[in-house]
Amino acid sequence: GEQREWGAKAWTYLSSVRSLSPLIQCITNFVSMDLTANTLLSAGASPAMLHSPNESPDFTPQVNALYINVGTLSDTWLPAMELAAQLASKLNKPWVLDPVAAGASRFRLKACLDLISLKPTVIRGNASEIIALAKASFPSTKGVDSSHDSTDAVEAAKSLANSNGAVVAVSGAVDFVTDGNRIVGARNGVPMMQKITATGCAVTALIAAFVATDPSHAMEATASALAVFGVAGELGMETARGPASLRTHLIDSLHGLDQTAVISGVKITAI
Amino acid sequence: GEQREWGAKAWTYLSSVRSLSPLIQCITNFVSMDLTANTLLSAGASPAMLHSPNESPDFTPQVNALYINVGTLSDTWLPAMELAAQLASKLNKPWVLDPVAAGASRFRLKACLDLISLKPTVIRGNASEIIALAKASFPSTKGVDSSHDSTDAVEAAKSLANSNGAVVAVSGAVDFVTDGNRIVGARNGVPMMQKITATGCAVTALIAAFVATDPSHAMEATASALAVFGVAGELGMETARGPASLRTHLIDSLHGLDQTAVISGVKITAI
Amino acid sequence: GEQREWGAKAWTYLSSVRSLSPLIQCITNFVSMDLTANTLLSAGASPAMLHSPNESPDFTPQVNALYINVGTLSDTWLPAMELAAQLASKLNKPWVLDPVAAGASRFRLKACLDLISLKPTVIRGNASEIIALAKASFPSTKGVDSSHDSTDAVEAAKSLANSNGAVVAVSGAVDFVTDGNRIVGARNGVPMMQKITATGCAVTALIAAFVATDPSHAMEATASALAVFGVAGELGMETARGPASLRTHLIDSLHGLDQTAVISGVKITAI
Repeated sequence: GEQREWGAKAWTYLSSVRSLSPLIQCITNFVSMDLTANTLLSAGASPAMLHSPNESPDFTPQVNALYINVGTLSDTWLPAMELAAQLASKLNKPWVLDPVAAGASRFRLKACLDLISLKPTVIRGNASEIIALAKASFPSTKGVDSSHDSTDAVEAAKSLANSNGAVVAVSGAVDFVTDGNRIVGARNGVPMMQKITATGCAVTALIAAFVATDPSHAMEATASALAVFGVAGELGMETARGPASLRTHLIDSLHGLDQTAVISGVKITAI
Repeated sequence: GEQREWGAKAWTYLSSVRSLSPLIQCITNFVSMDLTANTLLSAGASPAMLHSPNESPDFTPQVNALYINVGTLSDTWLPAMELAAQLASKLNKPWVLDPVAAGASRFRLKACLDLISLKPTVIRGNASEIIALAKASFPSTKGVDSSHDSTDAVEAAKSLANSNGAVVAVSGAVDFVTDGNRIVGARNGVPMMQKITATGCAVTALIAAFVATDPSHAMEATASALAVFGVAGELGMETARGPASLRTHLIDSLHGLDQTAVISGVKITAI
Repeated sequence: GEQREWGAKAWTYLSSVRSLSPLIQCITNFVSMDLTANTLLSAGASPAMLHSPNESPDFTPQVNALYINVGTLSDTWLPAMELAAQLASKLNKPWVLDPVAAGASRFRLKACLDLISLKPTVIRGNASEIIALAKASFPSTKGVDSSHDSTDAVEAAKSLANSNGAVVAVSGAVDFVTDGNRIVGARNGVPMMQKITATGCAVTALIAAFVATDPSHAMEATASALAVFGVAGELGMETARGPASLRTHLIDSLHGLDQTAVISGVKITAI
């Protein structure tokens, strides 16, 4: 059925990441760098945390995709993000935005909207972040954790996708992915993943790696990455005794995922 | 007896953190961000690593407590720390300082003393750090690890508390907490926790979360946080095979702590 | 035989690190700070992540060795690295350079070459990095992971050592260490260590700790650190189920290594 087809698709993406080892430039927050790099390595991709504007003109042309995450944003890092995004757009390379805590301050909201004007291929956030971006007004949310369900944000995601030409993903109990027209839902993962810092950041980086292997099908690659990461979490949860061992087992599982686990585990459906 | 009363108190604080999920703004060092965020999440709090002076005027008013840690101090981060501390003080929100390696340089010592003049609710350091702050002269200590016992620093802690109106905690084999008048000692934890980087930073963040639930009893909240983190370490040590598995088990244990473990495990006494 | 002599030497270095607890100033990239600090702590050393030019004039004189890693290089951190390196050289303290992704951009290549002109005691990189430094021209490599075998880089390493008076180590399936004249090979470690971010950074920090105990034999100390870290990885691999549990077990093993494991496990030979 439909789920099995999605499972096969997701397996193809993961296999491509493993065989092609796409080089992903990551300009991400300090909290998430370790987990993000380890997630990419475990999936078979090649992370590179180079951010300086002194380097991107030489380096961004070498990468397969760019990942930008505004978590620990500052006025010194924002120009670095903008330059790399401009380069990626100009070079026609996919780039993915994680608008962490988009609604937490006027400065941050404006920074996210400015980055979105540079045409990200994919935007992935929680419901509060996606709603904040669609509303484009401060104040709207509490901190970095979502105070909305992902279902609340579906209309905001469609609106954001339509006005910017991006695929938009909203993480939650169900992860929704839309190109503004179609919507799919991914139902993988376990609640305890929210008790591990930077799992959202890490899965957004994984989206960048999946999209890097097939930039013209960003919606399929995005849904697949979210589901595969969720399947790894489900397998990890089988032996976890809390958030820290879940983190360890999740990464181990992502590294070890085989075709059967992916095809039978992925739960993606059209909405 | 007294210990059981403290155990009940500590359990009340942990339960409050779990139910209220206080939002804690963390301006902390790069080394500790991952463990600090995971410690807060495992305890039930909501960490937010937003530091930029462009954001704090909008963001600090939304948080329940502020945590500042000077570990990887620089002249670009210091103004961010000072602004957030000023905002917290003005808004009457509790804020907690970790003066990492306070005596390592003139620049750092002055930065810590300047921050202390902005009236932190709690200061937690090791013996060498607290002694360096009380002496207020360079040089005094070796690096970031303490070369003094916590007992050596009790008078320094009382003096620091009295001159600044802060609760002062000194970590060590016994953790001492004083408001300048009363002193309590917490005897939880295991020596191997010192072989894990940033456990001191993480427990200071936990203090911020506990204090956030009851700002008018900062001394009780501080002692409780130190003891609860220590109990989690003791439980983690039961299955640890070294510092890295202890780190994992400590976080797992903190997430899973139940009333019996806290009430029977907490070892706090008046000195 | 020769291997057993090297094993005894490596054990002596590890024992010295445990008993002397050398203080290592680390100016390293954001991705690696956690693993680097935990590696040093588990080996018995004392890490200090202080980088600011406001502090190094006071702090660098207090340390036993300096470790510089350019991973997340920027124009604000480069002067901090240069100042600390100058201080270390002037004070005759050993310092060790990890030229991460040396060939990724003109800015980075020049930064690494400028740092090398400040006379590091040891340079450790992968084959692509060492070749990029020896060629001293952009472009030469792909990202941060090596696209060359370590054997390809032996001549480049000798040339770099001869022109700069540094010990040069090239990591790979075999780790080569040369002073420009002699070459030794260390054959410890497991391939999965490359699926953990920052293991290269961490072992370079461990080199700094080993060299700190015996600065006049930097080549022996470097080979010993590489082999000891590899032995810890081999032991960790026995119970690992993937990259994340390997990371945990590696650090646990490093902390627990005993004389027998080191002497029988170290595989160093002259080439």
